[in-house]
Amino acid sequence: MLELKVDLGDRSYPIFIGANILSDPNYFLPYIKGKSVAIVTNETVAPIYLDTIRSTLAGCDLTVVTLPDGEQYKNLETLNLIFDKLLQSRHTRKTTMVALGGGVIGDMTGFAAACYQRGVDFIQVPTTLLSQVDSSVGGKTGVNHALGKNMIGAFYQPNAVVIDTATLNTLPDRELSAGLAEVIKYGLICDQSFYEWLQENIDRLMSRDPEALSYAIHRSCQDKARVVEADEKESGIRAILNLGHTFGHAIETHTGYGSWLHGEAVAVGMVMAADLSFREGNLSKEDVDGIVTMLKRVSLPTLPPSGISPGRFVELMAVDKKVLDDQLRLVLLDSVGNANVTDRFNHKNLMDCLEQFCS
Amino acid sequence: MLELKVDLGDRSYPIFIGANILSDPNYFLPYIKGKSVAIVTNETVAPIYLDTIRSTLAGCDLTVVTLPDGEQYKNLETLNLIFDKLLQSRHTRKTTMVALGGGVIGDMTGFAAACYQRGVDFIQVPTTLLSQVDSSVGGKTGVNHALGKNMIGAFYQPNAVVIDTATLNTLPDRELSAGLAEVIKYGLICDQSFYEWLQENIDRLMSRDPEALSYAIHRSCQDKARVVEADEKESGIRAILNLGHTFGHAIETHTGYGSWLHGEAVAVGMVMAADLSFREGNLSKEDVDGIVTMLKRVSLPTLPPSGISPGRFVELMAVDKKVLDDQLRLVLLDSVGNANVTDRFNHKNLMDCLEQFCS
Repeated sequence: MLELKVDLGDRSYPIFIGANILSDPNYFLPYIKGKSVAIVTNETVAPIYLDTIRSTLAGCDLTVVTLPDGEQYKNLETLNLIFDKLLQSRHTRKTTMVALGGGVIGDMTGFAAACYQRGVDFIQVPTTLLSQVDSSVGGKTGVNHALGKNMIGAFYQPNAVVIDTATLNTLPDRELSAGLAEVIKYGLICDQSFYEWLQENIDRLMSRDPEALSYAIHRSCQDKARVVEADEKESGIRAILNLGHTFGHAIETHTGYGSWLHGEAVAVGMVMAADLSFREGNLSKEDVDGIVTMLKRVSLPTLPPSGISPGRFVELMAVDKKVLDDQLRLVLLDSVGNANVTDRFNHKNLMDCLEQFCS
Repeated sequence: MLELKVDLGDRSYPIFIGANILSDPNYFLPYIKGKSVAIVTNETVAPIYLDTIRSTLAGCDLTVVTLPDGEQYKNLETLNLIFDKLLQSRHTRKTTMVALGGGVIGDMTGFAAACYQRGVDFIQVPTTLLSQVDSSVGGKTGVNHALGKNMIGAFYQPNAVVIDTATLNTLPDRELSAGLAEVIKYGLICDQSFYEWLQENIDRLMSRDPEALSYAIHRSCQDKARVVEADEKESGIRAILNLGHTFGHAIETHTGYGSWLHGEAVAVGMVMAADLSFREGNLSKEDVDGIVTMLKRVSLPTLPPSGISPGRFVELMAVDKKVLDDQLRLVLLDSVGNANVTDRFNHKNLMDCLEQFCS
């Protein structure tokens, strides 16, 4: 079992990483103040893990909210289903919510916890690689709006994050790959030696070697915690975590939520960001090719879907939250292992990049 | 012009109180960081004050969101109308929201500001007495749910509160009275000398004497700020601000939002809380009668609507947020000027109280 701490003063919390820790009450009970617990999960995860966590929390008064599965349900309407159930079951301010599922469940449960009676405790139990290395850590919660992703939400930290690596055994291949996109991202933005480790070990990760996966999850959470500790509410440096995301969100918005996985869109976005970084003179062609090669080894796409014109692509990027005062800001690479957030890039380079990728 | 400060560390903010300060940019511009401002108001307030504030903020890029007027619109659906407009108008994280209206507008705008892109700045411009002395100060924001009032929300402090006392000139009599219920509340829970001042000056307030109103608003905000500073997130003492509210919420829920004004329900609730405090041996019969007399001088109701049985009343009280772990907690008076929050009262006394008031 590996443990690390996200250090945010009175909002600090531990992350536990280990196989089968879902069935160990010691990782849960110290973080549950009252007796009352609401587990929020979805139709895919419930049949596999709900019984286990029910036994683990057998001493608590449990309410279970099972939501439909998919990014298309990450909205205010579905959020309200959680509130309905909590109120019908008379949950008070002393309740603890448990998010059992992937990023969508984690983001919605966290946001519901932030808003329910103006804030209750919650525990993240991420069951996908993507949510284990990314969304469960750092306190970003929220839902989508028809006009943009994650437009409505809160910064709200969990009381603990419990990552059971055994849950990855049931994860579909495509989602494993999507999660690895974010793992690779940490290497690119802030951890060159991890990136080098990934180049050596990427096949072990793809074959689900438990030791390699635990190491990569721990290192990714560590990298993310370091960035979040420096800038909890994303007034600056935290935005580097969005490498590839502004390009990626354009793809997700264009295709409609749910057809591309988030990690797949981010993978293409990272390639495009790397390409623009190359055009800006900060990355070598070899670096860009190396990134493309690694993503391909992970079975991730490296090109956007056809049918988005460069003009439309820019338009879709501009709705993204990272736009400040009409200035498009992007995360670009200074080198492999170093990212920066900037609105100072040559617009022609961006358009050339989009011309190359969009057809 | 009177000014006071709510001292909450890095979330501190000023409250400005004065006649016609709505037209003075000096009370707004220092609290607006970007150029972009979204004013949220309603159909009743907009025709009277929107032009004034438009001129005051003439240098900003303004978006106006005009909502229907009424507590029945204080829900997630209406909240989403704010998000729609903000996103359509491309408001970024650097936008500042301005709540121009009464408590419903203030609560919804504050909650929208808390959630929009995970948090933007906002300024409260309360235009009713109730919102000036209560909801605009202290950072409680939120919306109602079909199963209970203010069940979904956030603690989110404004950047400034601008109270233009001249707006009270257009306030309907019934709403003036409803606001005075909360003013009287401050005297009862924590400020005996203010309560004595009110006994002397209540008629001046009813006749809208500007000097008396300014004094009462300032003193009420001061009292509230003191309580909020001691317990921002209501883990203890802040709950005394809910004197009469648990009884009152039962009335509001029974009658449906919108037929009784909040202050009217609170007035009855305060009488019931005082009656229970008397039964508990902490208040004299004369104190209770004095409270009833003052509320009557303010044209406020002192009895609940007919048709709620005592059993139903308790049931409706129990859905209130102030219930912790199935224990009904109430704000009771130790004396005029001193309140406490307790679950240690004689249940028979409560039922006797309800028997007396419910028919």
